[in-house]
Amino acid sequence: MEGWFAHVVRVRFAETDAQGIAHHASYVVWLEEARVAHLAAVAGGYAAIRERGIEALTTGIELTYERGAVFDDVLTIYIHCAEARGARFRYEYVVERDGERIATGSTRHATVDAVSRRPVRVPDWLLGDLLSGPPAPRS
Amino acid sequence: MEGWFAHVVRVRFAETDAQGIAHHASYVVWLEEARVAHLAAVAGGYAAIRERGIEALTTGIELTYERGAVFDDVLTIYIHCAEARGARFRYEYVVERDGERIATGSTRHATVDAVSRRPVRVPDWLLGDLLSGPPAPRS
Amino acid sequence: MEGWFAHVVRVRFAETDAQGIAHHASYVVWLEEARVAHLAAVAGGYAAIRERGIEALTTGIELTYERGAVFDDVLTIYIHCAEARGARFRYEYVVERDGERIATGSTRHATVDAVSRRPVRVPDWLLGDLLSGPPAPRS
Amino acid sequence: MEGWFAHVVRVRFAETDAQGIAHHASYVVWLEEARVAHLAAVAGGYAAIRERGIEALTTGIELTYERGAVFDDVLTIYIHCAEARGARFRYEYVVERDGERIATGSTRHATVDAVSRRPVRVPDWLLGDLLSGPPAPRS
Repeated sequence: MEGWFAHVVRVRFAETDAQGIAHHASYVVWLEEARVAHLAAVAGGYAAIRERGIEALTTGIELTYERGAVFDDVLTIYIHCAEARGARFRYEYVVERDGERIATGSTRHATVDAVSRRPVRVPDWLLGDLLSGPPAPRS
Repeated sequence: MEGWFAHVVRVRFAETDAQGIAHHASYVVWLEEARVAHLAAVAGGYAAIRERGIEALTTGIELTYERGAVFDDVLTIYIHCAEARGARFRYEYVVERDGERIATGSTRHATVDAVSRRPVRVPDWLLGDLLSGPPAPRS
Repeated sequence: MEGWFAHVVRVRFAETDAQGIAHHASYVVWLEEARVAHLAAVAGGYAAIRERGIEALTTGIELTYERGAVFDDVLTIYIHCAEARGARFRYEYVVERDGERIATGSTRHATVDAVSRRPVRVPDWLLGDLLSGPPAPRS
Repeated sequence: MEGWFAHVVRVRFAETDAQGIAHHASYVVWLEEARVAHLAAVAGGYAAIRERGIEALTTGIELTYERGAVFDDVLTIYIHCAEARGARFRYEYVVERDGERIATGSTRHATVDAVSRRPVRVPDWLLGDLLSGPPAPRS
């Protein structure tokens, strides 16, 4: 996972369900937590984004679950920015436990002006290309 | 439960945990849903409250769990306003399944001016005394 | 949405976030609630499935968010079974508010033997083809 | 907070609500996470408890909210075991942000035999008295 940003979460008991595994909606929250940590590392965090008058919306998500996670599992969420085009960008994720992949996913986002709600071009500093190894495609 | 307002919820699978029962944090959300339904019935709902420039905060909660609820259980949340004093009010709750009590609780709230954030006296219309049978103590 | 099963949810306050809209993870829970209601209508519910020794796993999800939902919005989740092949099946969803589409999605599932955890062919009765209008492709 | 165990959480965006603060149900989950971390430190964690054939149930909770927490706040949850009597025990909590108290709470629990579901006396090793400074009352 070279060039990807890594964020660690521990499965909370409240995140498990009656099948004895982490509920599939929990992953959506973990991806967001990884995104927030990534933004803090590359762009000064959500606060810095809002200070510049930009808001980032989530416009889509997809997840593929390969193995269940259980209570107290320590998971590593790998994230990188896979694509940016105009006002839209997309992250990719790999979730691992002890080096084994248990899920993959991606989220799509759009940047808008916080006041007018109009789309604004994704700022370069938001994407943290430098952390992502080879430059992401940019148009 | 005469004089109490009744609201029905069905336990979601996402609300269960690895002990096979509804997670104890789920009840907090159910009480809130019952409160919202109660407000809609007696006071035109949260929208009406905010339109009048008032915001209601939650300042405390307590819950006693007597029996576990499982996935797909249909629960009735009984709610009534037990007390109002100045800018503060308190609700009481009983959670039943098939007529059997499985939990009890209460929540404490404060009303503040939406702009100044200063406490404002709880409006009578918010409390729905008429629905609650005998009048609640009011000072 | 002819031939689709419809399930109604109301956005809980706990499901909103600091952007003032329903958090994008909430939709995952709503789709599941719609799935559960659909199963209850066509196949006797999850209980009936488990009684026959089958467990249904969620293996993937995708969601596209078109418009935000806010607190107390009443949403209709339309669901139908779009595909079944061996031990795998897939649902499609459309989320509407006042007749306007605000999100679309799909979930992928697999049926396994509850004890051996081995894949078992998706039973016809689980899919409720009759409710879905034209028969879903089946191999 | 001498003699109390400290656990740190960071407020997730998914945990905020449309009032712009962490939803009051989120605290219930944080207290549990602190409990789990405390148990891992003093008793080998939940796994060790279950291995000995004991299950710990939550029988009650109470929370008083003094100040709101916002997205990305770093909170310290202080926990200690305040009481143990037979099969029942109780934890107390203080939630701080930057040294300022924002909430207090307590949870009540019971230990049962994992198979028979009968109450069993709370084991001394579960309580971690040594970490709690002065010995907790024990009957």
